[in-house]
Amino acid sequence: MAAKNAFYAQSGGVTAVINASAAGVIEAARKQSGKIGRIYAGRNGIIGALTEDLIDTGQESDAAISALRYTPSGAFGSCRYKLKSLEQNRREYERLIEVFKAHDIGYFFYNGGGDSADTCLKVSQLSGTLGYPIQAIHVPKTVDNDLPITDCCPGFGSVAKYIAVSTLEASFDVASMSATSTKVFVLEVMGRHAGWIAAAGGLASSPEREIPVVILFPEISFDKQKFLAKVDSCVKKFGYCSVVVSEGVKGDDGKFLSDQGVRDAFGHAQLGGVAPVVASMVKEGLGLKYHWGVADYLQRAARHIASKTDVEQAYAMGQAAVEFAVQGHNSVMPTIERISARPYQWKVGMAQLSQVANVEKMMPENFITEDGFGITDLCREYLAPLIEGEDYPPYKDGLPDYVRLKNVAVPKKLSGFTL
Amino acid sequence: MAAKNAFYAQSGGVTAVINASAAGVIEAARKQSGKIGRIYAGRNGIIGALTEDLIDTGQESDAAISALRYTPSGAFGSCRYKLKSLEQNRREYERLIEVFKAHDIGYFFYNGGGDSADTCLKVSQLSGTLGYPIQAIHVPKTVDNDLPITDCCPGFGSVAKYIAVSTLEASFDVASMSATSTKVFVLEVMGRHAGWIAAAGGLASSPEREIPVVILFPEISFDKQKFLAKVDSCVKKFGYCSVVVSEGVKGDDGKFLSDQGVRDAFGHAQLGGVAPVVASMVKEGLGLKYHWGVADYLQRAARHIASKTDVEQAYAMGQAAVEFAVQGHNSVMPTIERISARPYQWKVGMAQLSQVANVEKMMPENFITEDGFGITDLCREYLAPLIEGEDYPPYKDGLPDYVRLKNVAVPKKLSGFTL
Repeated sequence: MAAKNAFYAQSGGVTAVINASAAGVIEAARKQSGKIGRIYAGRNGIIGALTEDLIDTGQESDAAISALRYTPSGAFGSCRYKLKSLEQNRREYERLIEVFKAHDIGYFFYNGGGDSADTCLKVSQLSGTLGYPIQAIHVPKTVDNDLPITDCCPGFGSVAKYIAVSTLEASFDVASMSATSTKVFVLEVMGRHAGWIAAAGGLASSPEREIPVVILFPEISFDKQKFLAKVDSCVKKFGYCSVVVSEGVKGDDGKFLSDQGVRDAFGHAQLGGVAPVVASMVKEGLGLKYHWGVADYLQRAARHIASKTDVEQAYAMGQAAVEFAVQGHNSVMPTIERISARPYQWKVGMAQLSQVANVEKMMPENFITEDGFGITDLCREYLAPLIEGEDYPPYKDGLPDYVRLKNVAVPKKLSGFTL
Repeated sequence: MAAKNAFYAQSGGVTAVINASAAGVIEAARKQSGKIGRIYAGRNGIIGALTEDLIDTGQESDAAISALRYTPSGAFGSCRYKLKSLEQNRREYERLIEVFKAHDIGYFFYNGGGDSADTCLKVSQLSGTLGYPIQAIHVPKTVDNDLPITDCCPGFGSVAKYIAVSTLEASFDVASMSATSTKVFVLEVMGRHAGWIAAAGGLASSPEREIPVVILFPEISFDKQKFLAKVDSCVKKFGYCSVVVSEGVKGDDGKFLSDQGVRDAFGHAQLGGVAPVVASMVKEGLGLKYHWGVADYLQRAARHIASKTDVEQAYAMGQAAVEFAVQGHNSVMPTIERISARPYQWKVGMAQLSQVANVEKMMPENFITEDGFGITDLCREYLAPLIEGEDYPPYKDGLPDYVRLKNVAVPKKLSGFTL
């Protein structure tokens, strides 16, 4: 049997280490020349497959692929494009199979979060139905850390490190200023419905270096009076306070705290963040001077302060996906299995996609302190190893020397397709 | 003549490297035991002198002082407290001299920006009048880079590096997402009336790695239509665009762009940043999806990504201040003198405080491109060496191992003083 070609695509919000997974896939696949032929990538994710806009990664040097390990973002482009269910849009799945068939693709590596795990599963199921065999392997990735089964998700450890370091540094800053100026610093972080990223702010404080960090989790309904009382007590004890607020925090009414009905001068809804809302409460309720920051893309793109653990795991997931494929597995996802926390040891595991798709892993209740504003020792033990180690990119002229690929297109063989 | 004691204080907004200057002062002064006795620091800056709240740095180990070199923020506390003019509040200056006299302090090292240079000068002048000699040396520090005479200001290079790296990383991120999602990323940066920090965002782009970065300088009056046209052309050409906006940008009416008359649901003025304002314009004017971030304290506290050049210069300024003092200089400030840009060479110079106080150095007009949205080659040549080199702090458990000093108080000798 001739070697089948492989297709790799990046999906959803990119991370500091999704390209490390790409490097893992491509470098491992290049070593499987007997079983894997050409390695294509989708330009802008799954859209590249639908529109037959494939990138020939064979045109990239070994050095360029290796540089992906330290380059953030999605080197081939990602997309936010959720395939509908088979019933709603069977046409799209059939088109994917058509493109895979035209380019002799037998391996489908899809690098993403929960939605893409679901897509990956459906492609695998449909390929059976349509009689064109595809081995679909999902490569886990999400800063939200909300995939089930795997101990953690590649991308999360680096965001966690960024937030922990930033919270530590900003706390040192506000502590210095607090005698006469700013007493409260509010940092808004990502994470959608899950408080994993916000929790990482709690790592800034340790028994040897106590820092008052008040965390607002999306899992905990926001109580303004309780929050202000907490900040007040921190400022009274320490002279200052840091607040880490998740973008997904909601009030008792189930509405996002960031959606305060704020209107601009023309009456238009103002699209602001939750950090200024919380900061204003501190000012109005306690009369304290504040500063606030919104990390936004900086947190998930910050390859310069990536976690070494995270980089290694992201690479290993890519590599394992290829190994699973050549071993004949289908509809699976490599996972990270924790062997022990101290010292941190882990190994690669395997999950069935049917158990991953459409399942969201939330913060366990016993990871959040009773008052709802902090992380427990159990949470700390879980998080700590994930931010361990530094893995600096090379620098040139004071800036990280990130790679940009050539991304040469594969000649098309089919007629066009309208998304 | 017995050795006089020294007093060191930190002033105004802290930086990633102001403690490196502190290390420079203390380590150099420790070597001058014949001429300099004890080395005191002001707790919370000049307030520590006024209230006779002095810290005995002699209680700190050599290792702890050396660790200041890689610890951001103000290790002794800083303050925003501007001494009034001699005419308005002679009492405060007299109190300073009284405290210095009580603790046999003959050297005053004041580490700050323009305001503190002015205070330093006045203390020196008044000490002559009051017959108690003080040698007042100003140690330059400000992320705003707006002190005159010196080629650059310690603290600026590290913020510039942080903004350049962050703009690069976020641009890689938005480029990956732009096919189906975010097309414009807006980053708000500090700098008050001067566009130096915003200019650093321009370093993310280079001839070998072109990135569309639109900079909004406080020096340029904001023109909404021109701005939208610029973003539109970038998105049409590159598919995406990054905007770096200075907090100090004003419109034609002279009002801050961040002050848009935005009201919350209760009619209260909303204290927001300029980034969401600019981002909303992009959405409403061009219909493009955006993300925005506000770096705030993260940018000036980010010792983890400090510029090696900046760290070395900050340390050298502290060291030189002590050398100037023991050489008998008074009312001076060490400066950075650029010898050449490529290769970058610099040496320590000396400025008279009378020429530093109350002078603000703005961006030269020929540093901003004709369209008002970018930096010229001249600006790039000026900025590039300032972000050169990395100087990573040591890490422990995944976090920078920043030092916290003991900050033991010196017993008081005087009665209290009301600020």
